Order: sequence, then C-alpha cells, then structure tokens
Amino acid sequence: MAHTIREKTKLLARVRRIRGQVEAVERALEAEIGCADVLQLIASVRGAVNGLTAEVMEDHIRFHVVDPAHEPDPERARGAAELIDVVRTYLK
Amino acid sequence: MAHTIREKTKLLARVRRIRGQVEAVERALEAEIGCADVLQLIASVRGAVNGLTAEVMEDHIRFHVVDPAHEPDPERARGAAELIDVVRTYLK
Amino acid sequence: MAHTIREKTKLLARVRRIRGQVEAVERALEAEIGCADVLQLIASVRGAVNGLTAEVMEDHIRFHVVDPAHEPDPERARGAAELIDVVRTYLK
Amino acid sequence: MAHTIREKTKLLARVRRIRGQVEAVERALEAEIGCADVLQLIASVRGAVNGLTAEVMEDHIRFHVVDPAHEPDPERARGAAELIDVVRTYLK
Repeated sequence: MAHTIREKTKLLARVRRIRGQVEAVERALEAEIGCADVLQLIASVRGAVNGLTAEVMEDHIRFHVVDPAHEPDPERARGAAELIDVVRTYLK
Repeated sequence: MAHTIREKTKLLARVRRIRGQVEAVERALEAEIGCADVLQLIASVRGAVNGLTAEVMEDHIRFHVVDPAHEPDPERARGAAELIDVVRTYLK
Repeated sequence: MAHTIREKTKLLARVRRIRGQVEAVERALEAEIGCADVLQLIASVRGAVNGLTAEVMEDHIRFHVVDPAHEPDPERARGAAELIDVVRTYLK
Repeated sequence: MAHTIREKTKLLARVRRIRGQVEAVERALEAEIGCADVLQLIASVRGAVNGLTAEVMEDHIRFHVVDPAHEPDPERARGAAELIDVVRTYLK
C-alpha cells in the first residue's frame, strides 16, 4: 500500500466516512427508530464498503500490477484498463 | 425497532464490533500495509455488515410481521420460519 | 409455490429469459469474444438472478406469510410492506 | 477470450452446468414446489454465476494483464497473484 500520498488521503477520507455511517447505525439502534430505516442506513454502509473495495483493488492494479496510463505494452495496458472497468462494475 | 432489550443489546454489540473493524481498516491504511491485507480487512467488514443486515431483517420479521415461535396459524408460522432461513442463506 | 397462475407465468417468463442470457454467455465463450464483453454478459445474468430472487421472496411473503394488501392487522400489513421494500432494495 | 483450448473447455463446461441449474429452477416453478426449495435452487445458480465470474476474471488477469507464473518482474508477479486471490475471495 505504498501508493501516492494523494491516493492514501482519498482512501482515508472514504474509510472515515464509512466509520461515520456505522456510528449513524449505532445511534439509530439506540434511538429505536424503525427497522426499515435502520436497514436503509446499513445498506448505505454496504454500498460504501463496496466502493472502498473497488478503489483499493483499482489502486492495487495500477500500482502493483499494470498501470494502464504508463504501461508501454498496449495489449497489457488495454487488459488492465478493462480489468479496472470490470472491478468497478462488479462492486458497484 | 422497539424490540426487546436483549435484541437491542445484541445488535449494538454487533454494530460496535463493525466500528472496531472499520477502525482497523483505517489504521491499516495509515500504516501502509499491503493491499491484499487491507482488502482482507475490508472483506471482514463486508461479512459483518451482511450479518448485521440478516439479524435486523430477522428481528423485523419476528417482531413486526410473524414470529414463528408464537404464531397460532401453522402455515404462517412455517412461512415465516422459511423466510428467516432464506434471509440467513442469502446474506451469509 | 401454489401461488396464482399469473404469478407463475411471470416467474416462468423471468427464468426463461435467464436461460436465454446464459445461452448468450455460452455462445460468447464459443465465439471467443473479449473477456470484458463476456463479463458484461455474465453481469447481466447475475442481475437477472437477483431480480428473480427478489420476486420469489416477495411472492413468498405475500402468499405464505402476510399479504400487505389483504392483512386486517394494520401493524402486520405495514411490517410486511416494509419487508418487501427491503428485499427489493437489497437484491437490486 | 483467445485463451487456451483447455481454459475454453473448462469455462464452457461451467456455463453449461449453469444452464442445467437454470432449467432445474424452471422445472421447479412448473412443478410448484415450495418457495424455500425454489430459492435454494436459485441460490445455487447465483453461487455458480459468481464462480464463473471469478474464473473469467482470473483468466483475463493471466492472459491479458500479468500471468504470475510467467512474469519475469517479481513484484508484478506477486501483485497479480495477490489480485487473483482477492478476486476469488470476493466472488466466492
């Protein structure tokens, strides 16, 4: 995970947002709001966790496998770009 | 979510455990450990969020729809019990 | 699954559409089209399978647990309607 | 998808098995067996579709991005091997 400072900052912002969403679920359970609303909040956490997963995978591909933006071999560059698209589609 | 005190306590313990897991992801990103290990930690969060979802849905079925343990109509009791099983299977 | 004829017809149409989508994946593999396109086709199958799951669960709730449209107890009716919404959200 | 013959054969066998599982869901709906059993069959389809997705992604990584078994750069080889592990974990 020795990526760029910029990437690290972005990922940390994402994970802190998730922590905030989990705290909102905690408060909702304490306040005994309706189940349907609690489940809505939990669904947001799930979505955000999938988004974080996709971003960490994408960074992993770029920094440790093949970065489509800097790969001299055009086939590999295309293969990596397609892979990043697929990861985003599947984890949306 | 006006369930029993016992249920509330159980759910709060679960959501606090999830918060701890999210904090572990945060520390891992800060410490710049390997992507694969970060993704492993994120996968645990995802699993725990699915588990929480299943438990809140199950409680919703029991407390606001049909509780298989106390339903006098045997068909409904069976339908609700099957539904709870299905929710568990799908969110494992 | 002794639901209405109308429901049965709808579910059968859905499952036959899924079979057609699986056959499209098979033809795509035989024709050796690009992986990214194959994965796109597989993603459609996955989406359709989730849609079928949601519909069968919804039918199960309506026909074997509580049908919000015909339940005399308003709390149960609301609980079942919320549950159906949740199932749809989670399996989208 | 111009992979090896061996890979193609394996993937085709997988997709045909999925078609068979979808046909089993169709027969189950026609025979009006219980919802819970239908949902069990649908869950098997979903699992098999995830397995197929993981295998196509893995092949894509090996054949179009970086094959850990033949990559001379040890960092890339390790990055690709970790990525394959992650894909398997997430799509199980």
